[in-house]
Amino acid sequence: MATRPETCGYLIAPDPLRPGLSRAVEGIDQTGAAHRISVVEERPLTIYLNSREIVTAMTIGDYPEYLALGFLRNQRMLDSDDEVTGVEFDPELDVVVVRTARQTDHEAKLAKKTRTSGCALGTVFGDMMAGLDGMKLPEAELTTSELYSLAHQINRTPSLYLEAGAIHGTVLCRRDRPLVYMEDVGRHNAVDKVAGWMFSEGVPAADKTLYTTGRLTSEMVIKTALMGIPVLASRSGFTAWGVEIARQVGLTLVGRLRGHRFVCLSGAERLVFDADPDSVPEEGRAHRRKGAVA
Amino acid sequence: MATRPETCGYLIAPDPLRPGLSRAVEGIDQTGAAHRISVVEERPLTIYLNSREIVTAMTIGDYPEYLALGFLRNQRMLDSDDEVTGVEFDPELDVVVVRTARQTDHEAKLAKKTRTSGCALGTVFGDMMAGLDGMKLPEAELTTSELYSLAHQINRTPSLYLEAGAIHGTVLCRRDRPLVYMEDVGRHNAVDKVAGWMFSEGVPAADKTLYTTGRLTSEMVIKTALMGIPVLASRSGFTAWGVEIARQVGLTLVGRLRGHRFVCLSGAERLVFDADPDSVPEEGRAHRRKGAVA
Repeated sequence: MATRPETCGYLIAPDPLRPGLSRAVEGIDQTGAAHRISVVEERPLTIYLNSREIVTAMTIGDYPEYLALGFLRNQRMLDSDDEVTGVEFDPELDVVVVRTARQTDHEAKLAKKTRTSGCALGTVFGDMMAGLDGMKLPEAELTTSELYSLAHQINRTPSLYLEAGAIHGTVLCRRDRPLVYMEDVGRHNAVDKVAGWMFSEGVPAADKTLYTTGRLTSEMVIKTALMGIPVLASRSGFTAWGVEIARQVGLTLVGRLRGHRFVCLSGAERLVFDADPDSVPEEGRAHRRKGAVA
Repeated sequence: MATRPETCGYLIAPDPLRPGLSRAVEGIDQTGAAHRISVVEERPLTIYLNSREIVTAMTIGDYPEYLALGFLRNQRMLDSDDEVTGVEFDPELDVVVVRTARQTDHEAKLAKKTRTSGCALGTVFGDMMAGLDGMKLPEAELTTSELYSLAHQINRTPSLYLEAGAIHGTVLCRRDRPLVYMEDVGRHNAVDKVAGWMFSEGVPAADKTLYTTGRLTSEMVIKTALMGIPVLASRSGFTAWGVEIARQVGLTLVGRLRGHRFVCLSGAERLVFDADPDSVPEEGRAHRRKGAVA
């Protein structure tokens, strides 16, 4: 497995020491001694589409423009041919406004959302599921050597997770190369930021793999499919509905990816076993993602 | 540390083998061999308050009545003096209807929700934060021996997590005794089910501790405070806003609780150090919660 300098292949890598993303907080430890730890920030960001307030997201606060674009795109409030004429972030108000050339039909979609979505849910399933009707993702091959190499590199990338914990990561990859690594307190936000970057840059999806630290729930699977990405991998586990949707749309779904172990529950016929699992080292303690992300 | 039979102190314990909560799914492992694993279910549940559709939650599916009651209560769509005249669950339609004697003001709250809440967020902060104004939780003592004993018992309790992974747990405790252990795909749902049980049974909160496997985000802290519970503990980490709100309302907040280690970032003056951390065993591999929950 080739090793690269830790963040040099990335187009966007985490910037764990960037001011404003975490802060030092004083407390005590189990011995009663004073203890100072680094804790991630969590702040509201209100997203507008043209003159309409759409949602307030709780976010770590970086890449608000990508988060807004990706959220609107994954909710299908922005169509692939919508011309975005501006994205303005106001850090004082914690507001981001996305402007489009034509008026969108988000009023109708908002009405639907009020009925079908909400707090305990985390997503607007009505619109998102509708976007999956008849979808078949491209039949992308995935080699196990690429999979192991990605996990190895991502786990060793300096990140806010390694610095402060309690945060999720989503990484857009191509073959054995991680390209864009976003982190956020909500895993939906991390994947929406990746989607926003792809939409902004007009990046093709068919040759990509998405890696997430979070569970492979229906929501993660739906978002990945709507983004057109044919492979989703995670170190975490599955839900039954996530597996069902992945099989329906032809998404390759790999979970419980740790050290040399993994389980593939959808698209196994597209896996190419070119690596010897016994040659893959166990995860080192320092780099192992801990249960702290939950 | 006293050991008890695994689930006998509980009023409600997980029932990991109950049909309908998980299913066996076929896939392959890293060697290409067929591999069958148990995967948790995830299904929609639509909650009505009287004739009004409020929200659709993605849930594992157990205790729908408690989930509905707890959700509505934590959103302050049900007041503490509201008389619930009926809770009807329809398993065919995946719908639960909560009926109250007097009409509630949920129409106004729904209007607020449309503006302030949504998919990337997971909660209606407008109403929830308002409920915290001027709140001071009772000054409950917490001994470290109770804390260690709770973690030890909870980690050893047979659960859907140990059976299938990819799920969160929330446990209502009194002193060193875990009482009600709820699990769900969303940690909000697990805590709402506990809230629904407390509301149904009229259980006092001032002498309780809440344990969660999830992160100590603003949302978890707000829900715990709204439930009137003065202590929140987790094996996971913190967010800065979660810590800030806990300090504001006087909630004792303990995180990163693993083996003999923990960090307390709010209410440390109420901790009583009556256990020797060195006498606490490290977590056994079989019982250690893995990063799979995320």
